Amino acid sequence: MVIAAARVHPEKKQWVARCGVSRFYNDFTSLVQDPDLDAIIIASPTGFHATHIEQAAKAGKAIFCEKPLDLSFSVVKKVVQIIKKANIPFMLGFNRRFDPTYCRLKDALQTGKVGTPHLLRITSRDPGPPPVEYLKTSGGLFLDMAIHDFDMARYLLDDEVETVYTEAAVLGEPRLKAFHDVDTAITTLRFKKGTLVTIDNSRNSAYGYDQRIEVFGEKGVWGATNPTATFEYHSDTQGFHSPTLLPFFMERYEASYRLEMGAFLKYISEGGPSPVSAEEGLQSMAISIAAQRSVEENRVVCLSEIINN
Amino acid sequence: MVIAAARVHPEKKQWVARCGVSRFYNDFTSLVQDPDLDAIIIASPTGFHATHIEQAAKAGKAIFCEKPLDLSFSVVKKVVQIIKKANIPFMLGFNRRFDPTYCRLKDALQTGKVGTPHLLRITSRDPGPPPVEYLKTSGGLFLDMAIHDFDMARYLLDDEVETVYTEAAVLGEPRLKAFHDVDTAITTLRFKKGTLVTIDNSRNSAYGYDQRIEVFGEKGVWGATNPTATFEYHSDTQGFHSPTLLPFFMERYEASYRLEMGAFLKYISEGGPSPVSAEEGLQSMAISIAAQRSVEENRVVCLSEIINN
Amino acid sequence: MVIAAARVHPEKKQWVARCGVSRFYNDFTSLVQDPDLDAIIIASPTGFHATHIEQAAKAGKAIFCEKPLDLSFSVVKKVVQIIKKANIPFMLGFNRRFDPTYCRLKDALQTGKVGTPHLLRITSRDPGPPPVEYLKTSGGLFLDMAIHDFDMARYLLDDEVETVYTEAAVLGEPRLKAFHDVDTAITTLRFKKGTLVTIDNSRNSAYGYDQRIEVFGEKGVWGATNPTATFEYHSDTQGFHSPTLLPFFMERYEASYRLEMGAFLKYISEGGPSPVSAEEGLQSMAISIAAQRSVEENRVVCLSEIINN
Amino acid sequence: MVIAAARVHPEKKQWVARCGVSRFYNDFTSLVQDPDLDAIIIASPTGFHATHIEQAAKAGKAIFCEKPLDLSFSVVKKVVQIIKKANIPFMLGFNRRFDPTYCRLKDALQTGKVGTPHLLRITSRDPGPPPVEYLKTSGGLFLDMAIHDFDMARYLLDDEVETVYTEAAVLGEPRLKAFHDVDTAITTLRFKKGTLVTIDNSRNSAYGYDQRIEVFGEKGVWGATNPTATFEYHSDTQGFHSPTLLPFFMERYEASYRLEMGAFLKYISEGGPSPVSAEEGLQSMAISIAAQRSVEENRVVCLSEIINN
Repeated sequence: MVIAAARVHPEKKQWVARCGVSRFYNDFTSLVQDPDLDAIIIASPTGFHATHIEQAAKAGKAIFCEKPLDLSFSVVKKVVQIIKKANIPFMLGFNRRFDPTYCRLKDALQTGKVGTPHLLRITSRDPGPPPVEYLKTSGGLFLDMAIHDFDMARYLLDDEVETVYTEAAVLGEPRLKAFHDVDTAITTLRFKKGTLVTIDNSRNSAYGYDQRIEVFGEKGVWGATNPTATFEYHSDTQGFHSPTLLPFFMERYEASYRLEMGAFLKYISEGGPSPVSAEEGLQSMAISIAAQRSVEENRVVCLSEIINN
Repeated sequence: MVIAAARVHPEKKQWVARCGVSRFYNDFTSLVQDPDLDAIIIASPTGFHATHIEQAAKAGKAIFCEKPLDLSFSVVKKVVQIIKKANIPFMLGFNRRFDPTYCRLKDALQTGKVGTPHLLRITSRDPGPPPVEYLKTSGGLFLDMAIHDFDMARYLLDDEVETVYTEAAVLGEPRLKAFHDVDTAITTLRFKKGTLVTIDNSRNSAYGYDQRIEVFGEKGVWGATNPTATFEYHSDTQGFHSPTLLPFFMERYEASYRLEMGAFLKYISEGGPSPVSAEEGLQSMAISIAAQRSVEENRVVCLSEIINN
Repeated sequence: MVIAAARVHPEKKQWVARCGVSRFYNDFTSLVQDPDLDAIIIASPTGFHATHIEQAAKAGKAIFCEKPLDLSFSVVKKVVQIIKKANIPFMLGFNRRFDPTYCRLKDALQTGKVGTPHLLRITSRDPGPPPVEYLKTSGGLFLDMAIHDFDMARYLLDDEVETVYTEAAVLGEPRLKAFHDVDTAITTLRFKKGTLVTIDNSRNSAYGYDQRIEVFGEKGVWGATNPTATFEYHSDTQGFHSPTLLPFFMERYEASYRLEMGAFLKYISEGGPSPVSAEEGLQSMAISIAAQRSVEENRVVCLSEIINN
Repeated sequence: MVIAAARVHPEKKQWVARCGVSRFYNDFTSLVQDPDLDAIIIASPTGFHATHIEQAAKAGKAIFCEKPLDLSFSVVKKVVQIIKKANIPFMLGFNRRFDPTYCRLKDALQTGKVGTPHLLRITSRDPGPPPVEYLKTSGGLFLDMAIHDFDMARYLLDDEVETVYTEAAVLGEPRLKAFHDVDTAITTLRFKKGTLVTIDNSRNSAYGYDQRIEVFGEKGVWGATNPTATFEYHSDTQGFHSPTLLPFFMERYEASYRLEMGAFLKYISEGGPSPVSAEEGLQSMAISIAAQRSVEENRVVCLSEIINN
């Protein structure tokens, strides 16, 4: 099986496919038409995702595409239709669903160890805002960052959102105001089966990349805490000290990226339902849009307002 | 100094004053008129608080009163006026303000160790709903239980609430529905200086009395975790295990009740501003009422709607 | 029941008995002969213990005596005989046996949760050496401090020691050399049923009073960790931080002192075997003497060398 | 640079060299004489180490050899001489010296954060005894397993051992008695600069591979705790639970094996002193032999007895 990574090679400035030995292309069109390629990994900038998916789908290639599908909800809806019609294997890159610790939480929920879930609490804080250049095209806190947490809530609870309420503010990075973006938010979700969810997001975590989840159910509480790079501690006159958190997502989710790619390979080799379908992306994106609207209009937003329009 | 505890002695069925040797009274009126008494601790059922405060205030006694002042907001407003006019020492029983762990958080905030607070997260879960008899007159989750958390947020942030949004549900104790009460809630508060607060409450904690606080600010995160009764652990083929939480508030807040009484004694001996004034009770109660209204009307409630009416 | 505390009242410079209202005596002899007294708590300096026990035993009083019985092993042997002949209730003050956390370890061992114990590891470190005046008459590290750990090993394992090997040094407080005392030691004990024990002691713990125990057995490991005064934490750029240890034994073993006295009251009211007999003191002291000899002669010492001489 | 791994390829039953593309040899002699090879990694069974080193040294190759050099102390002495005379780059495989957590402890010691080290405590427990076939030729607990801990003590303290005392027993795997081997041991080491060390070893850890280190010095305590595979927890009526330890050394020391190989590549590319010289192996092995003798003769053994004979 030969897989093309639709990412421009940083030195050669060419598109690259790799399987054992690398192969280079002058443009995405020639890459996608190479009959030797079985699957395409679309890791190009978000603005290209829709076009690249369409081209690859036409060429009948299996596709892995990094999230989000697009920043426009109507474009995403069209992409979902294109994939459906092309009837090709498609997987969306919500890598956190493959994190071994979160998988233990999912398993506890699925096997009834938690009982009926009452409350889900997600803390998701970046160690600092991304560069202004990135922020311009990121889609904002809810489409760029909180979408991972919204997707995680859907994934863990195996349920869909009914209402969304978000309070947000710019508390750490005043330049965000120019982009009508925020760096701090608390979102409350009500899920259809009754679970209440609170998600707090920040771009300003002085102590590293903080990613915690806690599900509270009738039988107790299950949580995921933060790993650290090393495991030493010390005690002195000032107290007990242990290491700070991992710097950012590349370190924190290293295993999940690896396992995600394994799931894609298994999926395109052995078939079966997509590990993360394009429709999943649509649903999670709808929550981001609802959160954005809740902030703008200072009110509770029903997800049906977004999905059905 | 002689202090009367306005609590009916469980065996003698008489009101009791104690300072060294106990003294008994047939009714609260004769107790409150005993010229030997300097101060009255009002720990009678909530329905008596307003009357007892009025009587004690008229008699010129210093007063400590357990929260809440009353379940009716208009009565509370009147009580606050009565206390103000009587110009007597008055302290309200928000005991958690004296918890040594929370005091460390307060100190960290006051001394600038946290920096500007961005987010405050409170988890407050009871080990089980109280008896139905109690619930009937409790005032509901927000006036009976969450008011402690609302007060804690005000105390820690030294700031007042602007807006309140609450999602709530009955997920564990269906009999609550008959009282129009809930057992699960997530409340989002926006404070005037900009801090966003999320509070999750439950009456159904299978693993004990869970009381955690976390303040996230520009310099890092400060939190209060749960103590346990003992400090053993064990590891076996199933993992690492350590003791469950303390059963309930009598164990968890033992130190804070002791220190609260110490603060009252110091206050009535040495003077100075009240450790917890009646106005504090009014403000925290207003948040409870706003949360209740937010649930009933499924919308964001401005605190000014409550306070100014 | 009236109990005399054989401790000179710090202000009145008189011996004192207390039960409700205090009673004072000019000397221990008149105290011990007061027919109203049922029991005597001997908390006088170690040098008086033997004489006070003898007097109280003659007077037929029930006795609680702080450890050690005496610094001379031959005197201790005699005291044990005196108590035996007098046939009075006697309890020795090894307070740590009543610590709620250690009791959980004892319970785990007794109920088979640990399985056969293979290894026992005790860490016992004082926050600093006591004043030189105290050290002069303390009996040295092994009789004053490590004896608690030796007793704990015997108590937890319900077994007696066969061999003792100790390495010791003066690493923090050079003035100890003048008293032929040490401030740092590692003791290896082999118990009769086969468990191996390592105990490390220090008088120089910069980070507070460190008292940890770990039993490793066929089914896993059970341990006791250190409590702290408060339960806050914080994370910043430097890592995760939580409070330092309790300052010393008065804070760390507060509950065990209270429960110990409760056990004494129950014992003298209801009868039964002594919670901690004088013979227990003899056995634990023998280990201290063996450790001391091991250091002096740089060799393994069989406990039978001490006990049978 | 081409490196040969002196390990028989499991399928081809041939010796293998690999650098990009693999190359195979019928015997070690033809491998070692391949002029294309720059360095040899000797990962053959212990019995071959001495011969393979000698051959590779004659051929002038750089050598990485897994510990131990040999099970016979006199052979090891000869091997050390051969390496010295050949004047080739040589590195011994004490992989744990490259563990990132232990490196933080080493750094704390070297930079004075611990102050003078008073006590070092190592806990090193295998999840179960290896197969009997392996045990026959392993050299026993001290040469096979505890040698890692002895080496770690030397590495961390940057000091050499003066005396060794070991208590050992067969408590979990009775078949060990037939090989005069043990599965449980406590070793006390006195180092030349005064630090006292206690190491407890077991082959019977029911709860996984337990590898902990704690250095206690004048400024406080620094320790290394166990990582786990995932980072979830849960609380229920039984208490708080988190994951069990990693299964064994392949998982626990994955990073250290990788970093060790990086240190070897850097060493043979850039020169400088060996990251772990053959003499280091000699010193750590001498402690293992002393521990063995201490058990056999039930006495303290001076390391000079071993080194100088």
